[in-house]
Amino acid sequence: MKTECTESQFTHVAIKDLFWTQYQKLINEVVIPYQWGALNDTIDDAEPSHAIDNFKIAADQMQGEFYGMVFQDSDVAKWLEAVAYSLSNHPDSALESLADDVIELIGKAQQPNGYVNTYFTVKAPDEKWTNVCECHELYCAGHLIEAGVAYYCATQKTALLNIVCKFADHINDVFGKKPGQLLGYPGHPEVELALMRLYEVTKDERYTQLCQFFIEQRGQKPHYYDIEYEKRGRTSYWQPHGKAWMVEQKNYSQAHAPITKQTLATGHAVRFVYLMAGVAHLARITHNQEKLTACRTLWKNVTNKQMYITGGIGSQSTGEAFSCDYDLPNDTAYTETCASIGLIMFANQMLQLEPNSDYADVMERALYNTVLAGMALDGKHFFYVNPLEVYPKAIAHNHIYDHVKPIRQQWFGCACCPPNVARLIGSIGNYIYTVKDNTIFTNLFIASESTLSLAKGEIKLIQKGNYPWQDTISFKLEMDNPSDADIALRIPNWCQHPKVSVNQSNINAENKNGDGYIHINRQWQTGDEILLQLPMQAMLVRPNPLLRHDARKVAIQRGPLVYCIEQADNGEQLHNLLIDSSVALKCVEGSGLLSGKTLLKAKAYRIDANQAQSQPLYSYNGAKPALTEYELTLVPYFSWANRGEGEMRVWINEL
Amino acid sequence: MKTECTESQFTHVAIKDLFWTQYQKLINEVVIPYQWGALNDTIDDAEPSHAIDNFKIAADQMQGEFYGMVFQDSDVAKWLEAVAYSLSNHPDSALESLADDVIELIGKAQQPNGYVNTYFTVKAPDEKWTNVCECHELYCAGHLIEAGVAYYCATQKTALLNIVCKFADHINDVFGKKPGQLLGYPGHPEVELALMRLYEVTKDERYTQLCQFFIEQRGQKPHYYDIEYEKRGRTSYWQPHGKAWMVEQKNYSQAHAPITKQTLATGHAVRFVYLMAGVAHLARITHNQEKLTACRTLWKNVTNKQMYITGGIGSQSTGEAFSCDYDLPNDTAYTETCASIGLIMFANQMLQLEPNSDYADVMERALYNTVLAGMALDGKHFFYVNPLEVYPKAIAHNHIYDHVKPIRQQWFGCACCPPNVARLIGSIGNYIYTVKDNTIFTNLFIASESTLSLAKGEIKLIQKGNYPWQDTISFKLEMDNPSDADIALRIPNWCQHPKVSVNQSNINAENKNGDGYIHINRQWQTGDEILLQLPMQAMLVRPNPLLRHDARKVAIQRGPLVYCIEQADNGEQLHNLLIDSSVALKCVEGSGLLSGKTLLKAKAYRIDANQAQSQPLYSYNGAKPALTEYELTLVPYFSWANRGEGEMRVWINEL
Repeated sequence: MKTECTESQFTHVAIKDLFWTQYQKLINEVVIPYQWGALNDTIDDAEPSHAIDNFKIAADQMQGEFYGMVFQDSDVAKWLEAVAYSLSNHPDSALESLADDVIELIGKAQQPNGYVNTYFTVKAPDEKWTNVCECHELYCAGHLIEAGVAYYCATQKTALLNIVCKFADHINDVFGKKPGQLLGYPGHPEVELALMRLYEVTKDERYTQLCQFFIEQRGQKPHYYDIEYEKRGRTSYWQPHGKAWMVEQKNYSQAHAPITKQTLATGHAVRFVYLMAGVAHLARITHNQEKLTACRTLWKNVTNKQMYITGGIGSQSTGEAFSCDYDLPNDTAYTETCASIGLIMFANQMLQLEPNSDYADVMERALYNTVLAGMALDGKHFFYVNPLEVYPKAIAHNHIYDHVKPIRQQWFGCACCPPNVARLIGSIGNYIYTVKDNTIFTNLFIASESTLSLAKGEIKLIQKGNYPWQDTISFKLEMDNPSDADIALRIPNWCQHPKVSVNQSNINAENKNGDGYIHINRQWQTGDEILLQLPMQAMLVRPNPLLRHDARKVAIQRGPLVYCIEQADNGEQLHNLLIDSSVALKCVEGSGLLSGKTLLKAKAYRIDANQAQSQPLYSYNGAKPALTEYELTLVPYFSWANRGEGEMRVWINEL
Repeated sequence: MKTECTESQFTHVAIKDLFWTQYQKLINEVVIPYQWGALNDTIDDAEPSHAIDNFKIAADQMQGEFYGMVFQDSDVAKWLEAVAYSLSNHPDSALESLADDVIELIGKAQQPNGYVNTYFTVKAPDEKWTNVCECHELYCAGHLIEAGVAYYCATQKTALLNIVCKFADHINDVFGKKPGQLLGYPGHPEVELALMRLYEVTKDERYTQLCQFFIEQRGQKPHYYDIEYEKRGRTSYWQPHGKAWMVEQKNYSQAHAPITKQTLATGHAVRFVYLMAGVAHLARITHNQEKLTACRTLWKNVTNKQMYITGGIGSQSTGEAFSCDYDLPNDTAYTETCASIGLIMFANQMLQLEPNSDYADVMERALYNTVLAGMALDGKHFFYVNPLEVYPKAIAHNHIYDHVKPIRQQWFGCACCPPNVARLIGSIGNYIYTVKDNTIFTNLFIASESTLSLAKGEIKLIQKGNYPWQDTISFKLEMDNPSDADIALRIPNWCQHPKVSVNQSNINAENKNGDGYIHINRQWQTGDEILLQLPMQAMLVRPNPLLRHDARKVAIQRGPLVYCIEQADNGEQLHNLLIDSSVALKCVEGSGLLSGKTLLKAKAYRIDANQAQSQPLYSYNGAKPALTEYELTLVPYFSWANRGEGEMRVWINEL
């Protein structure tokens, strides 16, 4: 994939990985065609989309009404972005031609001044830019810009890039501090990170300046959301008959204070991470220390106090939002797939900003657990919400679980997550390495061939392995001339006794740098091979004692994968299973739907509940319940709920 | 209190109990005056009520608009009912005069045809009886009827009784199967049990027949809620701009099926128990086997599958409703005070229907735990919601707790619970005994003097003791002539080795009847004394293994009182305290606000969380957390949250 046009310093990554090529194949062969069908409403039983028709109507190619969410356009943009990555990985002229047609359609729907948004063009032409707090106009713009950048990088075609540049220029005319311009910024951040990507391609500093404007206006007083609310006559898009709570609850959009004054992750989780990805990118390009400090502070809060073991964030359904430090309920969690995707984008920007393996550890955790759990193994069903504990019987009756689905759904009315998974998997090559000066940092272990541009020349790195299942990764180097590059290997925080050798000579692998990487400095030449072994025995994970929902429970992790227990393997009433943490876990090969995956077996005990229906609810002075030995089967969390509806839990009661 | 005019067979109960006279004193001296102030909006900081003003406006004594909930009138009715009980216990001419004035006001607000409801009279005169599903018109009627019956019994004054008879007669004209009558029945049951009480006073069978009509119409097809919905043009009182979900979700009002076809407690918990109290009463009076069977089935479902250890019911906030069997979350529980009051009324009716100590066990559990927890020790603050676990830090941020208050509130906009507590405590004498033919069943242990009418004459029973703190209860008998009455002593289900003696001769107290009582049949004469000893060592309670929220936890109960741990005694992070169930609990005397109460001490261990803020969220392969010995202090659940905001939990982690 050509990426000189993105922010990465490297020039080519070809994925050769067993695990990820299967996913990329699924994206190319199933997800993208399926999503194209969804956008065109040709999938039976899926919720209607109408997204392509909206563009046709806006382009005067069709009669009709706008249909869908106010941000319906973003589904088309995310599909195009996913197509762009797919084309870089697997050229496909029919798909490219289809995408070109969509781009032509978007061009026809673009207004003469550069404006693109079918909701406002078709349905509310007089309301453009009157409600940036609630109406996702800049959010949709951001996704379209991202698609334009990606499609240009993939194909070198400029049609969509020109459309989005013209649109960005229009936005730059509308917003700003000059007389007649609006002082606004998006309710749903996204355009910030997109403008930074557009800058990386175009090097046009108006885009970084516009991004900076949006970020620095955020949270200023008098508050812009109030100003525009008054100006439009106190109307609310989402509550036509009620209070405009998005305007009132400014922390929902992280707009309650300037970002450099914020210390706690709050509000809508996706908005937060999208915003922070943009802030971190801007901080790097502008060398802004204050923004860097804010990024570090907020990163630490979210990952040290408010993140699930699966890399999920956003612990409540109301507002799809953060709660407070250490409030991580497992069954009512929101943990949106998109929020973990945004967390990966934030992590990636932090890695670009400063090397620290913590960022990559979180990236890996979110990627291999929540993000992959967002999509079924068939590529056709998706989770928006990724709980860590599910009890389907109660979901049907107790409304605290209204947001939780025990099995993945075909398509959503609000379809943000499925195309977001597709674009992340398609662009996974962007997340493997970061390069700083003359150092290559290895962040993800994904077999691949990458040509990386260092300060002192190019190096081709051939990574091999069968991660996340097997523990040995090799890196072969190729270069035109010997190089004294620094190669920094991430030692994941789950790995306790790594081994490293160069050309079969061992290196002290306990000696991590302050940044969490093992740095190998030497004169490299073509044919050199680094072997990295990350022993992957299954491990117990214990919760921080402030995590009340996990008290007296353990989770199980092997390599980067968090495991769970499912009813399909272990029967009902998973809370009656107690794992014996004194006995080592065993690896076994999965079969059927889970073939190719490593499952785990654990010694455990079961509290008998066979007679429970006829027993009283409460018993006095009874003995502790009798235990029967039982062998637990654990499956990777990302593969749960592929075998029908059933109970699941990540945190298992400990004997 | 004179009670020949209620359904009870006895004629006089005077409460002489230390525990309950304190509560009755609080009701008389604090709650009733406070609530009078609230009804008249003279309490600072309390939510506005306007309830008396609404009647003044309806009576043309004042200009103004109706304000408040559509069922605002019921607060006045419940206050009057509480006043009636208060007057029977403690005559107070000033209070009686005040109540007479209110009754006169209600009479002036009554329409010539008998109709009373200030919302409809003042605000929506053309909409009377057009929306019985949503609008609580019959619910308010029911509460007024209850007040009329109670006030007549307390004072022998007929003014309010005449008002409610005239109203009931009007309702009997409006509803029925004759041409021109409505086939409707209340969305919120209450009028059913009230009509049965009115029948007990008046012996007018039109009231049982009207009650029977309401009960038997419920759930018939075509559904009346749909019929009236169409007739009024598909409007909704609660959702003027949305769907009429109360009409759609018929199980919310237990109107999804005829009551004799229902087997699971579902929907709004208060509606359910109010309805069932009426059904049980009707089944007794009409000797209807089918309704009796439905009562037994639904009683078993609610108390064996859906009841908290505190006697709370309704495990979710949405719809203030039941969830499904065994779904009893402790922190998001709704467990409304009123629902437990209704459960007591249902239990009392079941006891009248058939003797079974199960009913009284549940009655005692709900009374001494959830109902008393509904009111602060100062009588001025109230809980609507009674969770079994509270973590105030998260309540402020996580919206799954929006309904949970960590401290009691002054008054509610929807003020159903405070006056309901007042009327129950005022009428507690009604729940002590049931009499069947020649048998006296002792249900509650409350020191009192009662004159009971048996088939073969009157017996005066003088009950003494210091329940729930002390374990010995005595019953002295007085009668004009020797009697062969059967005296049946309830042995609570928590009591394992009761002792009984008659005139100091022991009786085999292990030999319970099939109904759960120890029956003593002998020739009684004045001066005979029964001593009942119910040993009250503090006990561990274990949950049914299907209660996943309580797995590996124990609760503590002593006598009828469920205990809890509070932050005020045990510090923060109550989930890090593990009780050692192998060591006996100790009783200690409470002090300060808790003086006079028995507290408990338990051997326990604490997981150290002092350094937790600086530790990672998740740790690999660590040892089990270190434990430090700690002595837990437990307080009766009903007395929690009287010492400021803090954590609380009933179910304690077991070592």
